[in-house]
Amino acid sequence: MSSSAERDFVTAHLDDLHADLDAWLRIPSISADPAHAGDVAASADWLADALRRTGFPTVEIWPTEGAPAVFAEWPSADAGAPVALVYGHHDVQPVDPLELWDRPPFEPTRVEGPDGPELHARGAIDDKGNVAFHLLGMRAHLAATGRDTPAVTVKLLIEGEEESGSPYFADLLRAHADRLACDVVVVSDTGMAAPDVPSAVTAMRGLADAEITLRGPAVDLHSGSFGGAVPNPLHAMAELLASLHDESGRVTLPGFYDKVRPLTDRERELMGRVPFDEQAWLAGPAASRVATGEAGFSTLERVGARPTAEVNGMWGGYTGPGHKTIVPAEAHAKVTFRLVADQVPADLGEQVRAWVQANTPAGIEADVHVPPGGVAPCRSDIDHPAMDALLRSIAQAFDTDADQVLFTREGGSGPEADLAGILGAPLLFLGAGLPTDRIHSPNERVLLPMLYRGAEATAHLWRELATVPFPAR
Amino acid sequence: MSSSAERDFVTAHLDDLHADLDAWLRIPSISADPAHAGDVAASADWLADALRRTGFPTVEIWPTEGAPAVFAEWPSADAGAPVALVYGHHDVQPVDPLELWDRPPFEPTRVEGPDGPELHARGAIDDKGNVAFHLLGMRAHLAATGRDTPAVTVKLLIEGEEESGSPYFADLLRAHADRLACDVVVVSDTGMAAPDVPSAVTAMRGLADAEITLRGPAVDLHSGSFGGAVPNPLHAMAELLASLHDESGRVTLPGFYDKVRPLTDRERELMGRVPFDEQAWLAGPAASRVATGEAGFSTLERVGARPTAEVNGMWGGYTGPGHKTIVPAEAHAKVTFRLVADQVPADLGEQVRAWVQANTPAGIEADVHVPPGGVAPCRSDIDHPAMDALLRSIAQAFDTDADQVLFTREGGSGPEADLAGILGAPLLFLGAGLPTDRIHSPNERVLLPMLYRGAEATAHLWRELATVPFPAR
Repeated sequence: MSSSAERDFVTAHLDDLHADLDAWLRIPSISADPAHAGDVAASADWLADALRRTGFPTVEIWPTEGAPAVFAEWPSADAGAPVALVYGHHDVQPVDPLELWDRPPFEPTRVEGPDGPELHARGAIDDKGNVAFHLLGMRAHLAATGRDTPAVTVKLLIEGEEESGSPYFADLLRAHADRLACDVVVVSDTGMAAPDVPSAVTAMRGLADAEITLRGPAVDLHSGSFGGAVPNPLHAMAELLASLHDESGRVTLPGFYDKVRPLTDRERELMGRVPFDEQAWLAGPAASRVATGEAGFSTLERVGARPTAEVNGMWGGYTGPGHKTIVPAEAHAKVTFRLVADQVPADLGEQVRAWVQANTPAGIEADVHVPPGGVAPCRSDIDHPAMDALLRSIAQAFDTDADQVLFTREGGSGPEADLAGILGAPLLFLGAGLPTDRIHSPNERVLLPMLYRGAEATAHLWRELATVPFPAR
Repeated sequence: MSSSAERDFVTAHLDDLHADLDAWLRIPSISADPAHAGDVAASADWLADALRRTGFPTVEIWPTEGAPAVFAEWPSADAGAPVALVYGHHDVQPVDPLELWDRPPFEPTRVEGPDGPELHARGAIDDKGNVAFHLLGMRAHLAATGRDTPAVTVKLLIEGEEESGSPYFADLLRAHADRLACDVVVVSDTGMAAPDVPSAVTAMRGLADAEITLRGPAVDLHSGSFGGAVPNPLHAMAELLASLHDESGRVTLPGFYDKVRPLTDRERELMGRVPFDEQAWLAGPAASRVATGEAGFSTLERVGARPTAEVNGMWGGYTGPGHKTIVPAEAHAKVTFRLVADQVPADLGEQVRAWVQANTPAGIEADVHVPPGGVAPCRSDIDHPAMDALLRSIAQAFDTDADQVLFTREGGSGPEADLAGILGAPLLFLGAGLPTDRIHSPNERVLLPMLYRGAEATAHLWRELATVPFPAR
């Protein structure tokens, strides 16, 4: 096994990382619950103190209309050094159902697992673990290179509302665009394919949502007197939602695929190299005997690289015990769409309306609500020289070669497209999570050796990025 | 305008009918609400007293496992006189939403309407009005014919749980089959086509219900990680329910129509004579621009004479504010079927299961719950001589000829098939309701002249039925 000064420093200071995480994870910074607003603020304070301890000369808490973000900056003394901005978040998901946790979610507990030591707590990886490794990584970078300042100017923007949909994040970016100016964004809120599979995320999907109401009779009608002779909104909703996909599993919204950038043969080949045990994946929480979806694509492509439409909820009529013989007045459905580059969330309103209009029978009135905003999809340029720097950094932390680092795609959505769009900088993804970490679920955990590798990789990254010839800003 | 001794008596004693109804309607005998169990018992007591006042020599309150029924009998002194059993109910529907009532539902109020005086109260027609006219009708029969006992033996069975689905009614019939033995059942729980359209119901539809649960993932899944690659139970439910009807509006359950007795040309011709303003009907609570349903049938045929399938409720996934990006674990639907002769409710379990099985995709588990029982459809024999007696009675009350009395069909369902089946007697329907009476809805009312005609018709009926050559029992 090869070694490096960065790894040596990380290895010698693991207790610092453990102590930091232990303290931070005890703060229940649940942004979705107003009762925890004080904890979210305390979490920001804790992180600001930790960044000052680490040596960042500038550390500020930036209030928003919602929860506070933390900004820090450590300028490089080197003239013309590139500027990297780390993105992450310090808020966490709610913990219910609490009874499904094996241990209290805010009392971090170390557990010996099959792949090494794990730390169990809400936020252990999403996203406090991913942010915390930057503290140790920066110290390792400075110690290993013997520098007083980093080889690149490192800024951090750690928001407090990612788990609530980042409602004020774009405003924050626009308000502080000058302070946040950078050559590259390093997103630390994702993960890798497996403990032994060093990989880098290259894309995240966007998101748009729609709520559809179908109205028939003015009031719930007696099905004996009216049933079978007037339009039933539940029948209409069933037919509408059944029309959301065609027989090939493709979404039927007019124009939905027009802006989808097709997967290139090289991208498909790269995705095909990612080890994936479909049967094990199906046997997990999916509890499914079959994989399904858009014809002509693998499961990994379907969840990472293709747009989808998913009915998340539907309701209408009588839902209590027994039966009630009515033709109900209304039916409702909630649908979300995952988008890929270069789809535009703002296009969905018109597409959904056109689809609903084309599939609503006479006698049913449709009301379509598509909130403005949505989340844009984002992607990395895998041919950018900064990507090479990232791959080299990850490879060193995993004792392998850069061409052995695989590319994966994150099926979820976040505010990363705003970072790229508003700040005009390319995206890199460096995260230490695993698909088995149970984020957003009971018993969230982090595999500690993954965090150690994250810390080492970031230490390498600041050195490697200094060599990248970024264009002038 | 012609007259009769029966009408003279009824007209001279309208205040008795008004007083009876006013007292009875003040008792909120809501059988569905356990808090009103005492009121249902009080309603039975009131009716028993009223029957005794009328002169019935036998009046009994029959307890059930649920609410009490009232039984009365007035034997004819004539040897070999036929026996008629009147069916009705003394319980009423709940009154919510109370705020939609213009007047307190249990303070009967007289209102002058465009067709004559109306009485507004819960139960005004359904079914206290329809039962109350028998009190005056019996007195009119006796007075007009100068008899001490009726020309036919008249029994009444007025149950207390019709609005709760008559759960113990069949048991009650079986337990007292000897006391209830009769040549003909006179159902007084329906109505006529319009105030100036004397008519007789000839059929009621049956009812069966099913609840369907579709299960996909073991838990709600993150749609970013799993959406588009595993079966979504809401998608499966939409497709299943969309398959409930074919393009002709026919129900797709295998075998659903096998036992349906086709409408004869004569039946269709008779139904076609019933005046029906479809536009006015659609403009009512249906609030619909279009009539729809099974191809090849009129709206009156669809709601009265054809079987239907109606989704009454469906739900699954996230139904709160905003959106939640899940692939839900379960989807649910409630479906009821209206049945016509000679469909059998017990057949529906197998038919629903076969339909669900044929339309559930791989990876989705279906759970179908079809409760035993259901309600059988029922029909009158329009060629039975007792039907002629009914038509003559109605015609006299409306100053017309028997061949001007139209035949209608009731789309709703009740325990009438049990009466026919368990007691082995033909059904006649004599009710004074109107489609505009808002039964089961706020502001239920009765058009009082319809009740007067009901009282007169029943007075004629006991005389007319005495001439019918019923087969030996």
